[in-house]
Amino acid sequence: MSELLNTRIVLASRPRGEPEASNLRLERVPIAAPGPGEVLLRNHYLSLDPYMRGRMDEGRSYSPPVAINDVMEGRTVSEVLASGHPDFIVGDKVVATGGWQSLAVVKGDSITRKLNRLDLPLSTALGVYGMPGFTAYAGLHEIGKPQPGETLVVAAASGPVGATVGQIARMQGARTVGIAGGEAKRQYLETLGFDVALDHRAGDFAEQLRAAVPGGIDVYFENVGGKVFDAVVPLLNDFARIPVCGTIATYNERDRVLPGPDRLPGFVSRILRQRLTVRGFIQRDFIHLFPDFLEDMGRWLKDGRVQYREDIVEGLENAPEAFFGLLKGRNFGKLVVKLVG
Amino acid sequence: MSELLNTRIVLASRPRGEPEASNLRLERVPIAAPGPGEVLLRNHYLSLDPYMRGRMDEGRSYSPPVAINDVMEGRTVSEVLASGHPDFIVGDKVVATGGWQSLAVVKGDSITRKLNRLDLPLSTALGVYGMPGFTAYAGLHEIGKPQPGETLVVAAASGPVGATVGQIARMQGARTVGIAGGEAKRQYLETLGFDVALDHRAGDFAEQLRAAVPGGIDVYFENVGGKVFDAVVPLLNDFARIPVCGTIATYNERDRVLPGPDRLPGFVSRILRQRLTVRGFIQRDFIHLFPDFLEDMGRWLKDGRVQYREDIVEGLENAPEAFFGLLKGRNFGKLVVKLVG
Repeated sequence: MSELLNTRIVLASRPRGEPEASNLRLERVPIAAPGPGEVLLRNHYLSLDPYMRGRMDEGRSYSPPVAINDVMEGRTVSEVLASGHPDFIVGDKVVATGGWQSLAVVKGDSITRKLNRLDLPLSTALGVYGMPGFTAYAGLHEIGKPQPGETLVVAAASGPVGATVGQIARMQGARTVGIAGGEAKRQYLETLGFDVALDHRAGDFAEQLRAAVPGGIDVYFENVGGKVFDAVVPLLNDFARIPVCGTIATYNERDRVLPGPDRLPGFVSRILRQRLTVRGFIQRDFIHLFPDFLEDMGRWLKDGRVQYREDIVEGLENAPEAFFGLLKGRNFGKLVVKLVG
Repeated sequence: MSELLNTRIVLASRPRGEPEASNLRLERVPIAAPGPGEVLLRNHYLSLDPYMRGRMDEGRSYSPPVAINDVMEGRTVSEVLASGHPDFIVGDKVVATGGWQSLAVVKGDSITRKLNRLDLPLSTALGVYGMPGFTAYAGLHEIGKPQPGETLVVAAASGPVGATVGQIARMQGARTVGIAGGEAKRQYLETLGFDVALDHRAGDFAEQLRAAVPGGIDVYFENVGGKVFDAVVPLLNDFARIPVCGTIATYNERDRVLPGPDRLPGFVSRILRQRLTVRGFIQRDFIHLFPDFLEDMGRWLKDGRVQYREDIVEGLENAPEAFFGLLKGRNFGKLVVKLVG
């Protein structure tokens, strides 16, 4: 075991604005055998997600930042190679926080999900049948609560959160408007059953959105921020709900001073006048719903009532470019890195 | 009946920014007898409230604006002088939307509360035992939900909403920080039992607030906006709740373009990072709680567990100046106009 070499990507420096290749470093280092309570994992799939941009910055967020020279954090589908924990045996397939690396030693207690009986592709446990799908499910269940006949808008709608939000809301009787970047993604949204599919790159996007929601917007599932948010706000109905699970458009702008006017007082005043609910969440806040999610979503996936699309990149060395592209909307579907050939 | 003269104040023109005397007009006009289903009222007390500023503006709010030359809207404690509605007899005391006038004809169905058995001063039905007190009660119950040991901050804390918020939250085990303008009001807050009382006019107000909440802020009951909001936001804890029932500091600024930077994207990003809940409401959204409120608050007032202060102005002709002063925080306690000598 002492000769086992791990290929990994560490945070070399903190980005200013957009991250670039020099902020990350690929290295090969020996990995120690697991101690008591630990397991040694081989990572098969690594999930790349927008929230990782936040982990590259210092400062207050819902999780501590990745330290310089530490492995980039990430969720993986992994296989147990050696176990020092009574709950795991060699060959177990699990979802773990294995990070951007080929091997990982993690605490067994940190692993909350085994995939041995999964009858779907393993990679789905990182997408529609994992954290992103659960984000959609929980945010709708606890905050968005679309009612029959209401109108829901979601952006990044070809991605794993947005696509799932739209499909669940439609099952619940809502009229759904999906937004994505580019004509190919827009057409894909139509195949998913969105009532209206829009391309936010269109010059008259704000007017298109207004025309698409003659009855206004009751739920805006916020996972992008930026110009979509700006176009949505004037169209909100009284009592609209805005679950906020991401603001990818501003992830590179944490420290930028944005030009005026200052729209914040007007927005708070609107929250009052229209009795809006704006609430931030991450999926683990609602982890009590996870068993229900596994049951409901497992059935919907088998029925074909929920469809999904994956964008699978081969090889850890291609993870940085894929991640940078993710922040620019270049992926098409859930972005996953396949680590084992 | 045909000779009965009504003294009333109508909206003469819409204010730009701060309202002034020329925006209102006092006039004496005959009032018709009540028709079927209507009642004729003599108004004893008129409530003056910050929301009335919004009614003077055109545009979208939670209620339609007052039309030019129409009587200014307002809640009153009134006595029935003549009744065309089977539920009311001459002499009944009621809470009505009687408006800024000495007499009123209203639909009997619009009257939802009789005060014949009230064993508190009639004016309390417009303050601590009426809409403002219920705003405090409902906003805490449905949105703020202070838990024992948590810290709650409220401004305009010598007013009927803020004072009630602080006293209820303290009963529920929260640590309470009250904010008001000026030393006299600040000292009054101490008599109400706030754990800390601050004067927002102090030059180092933001630093004082920071020092007052070493464990951060879990509930900010937003009824003022402006610089208090700005000082509160950086001190919010994760999962903080912000019930928004008023933003009086910005009521005169609806159409003003505020200088940058634009803080809105950063605030939405904070809502996500800190999993904040920001929710606007008005008391009638939670009207199902009103019977509970009457029971609980009636007991607390008799027990002396909730105290209140009224600022009673004599005579309808003094209502405009009193209202303009309210928007500048010049009142001290619930502002009520006494109409009958």
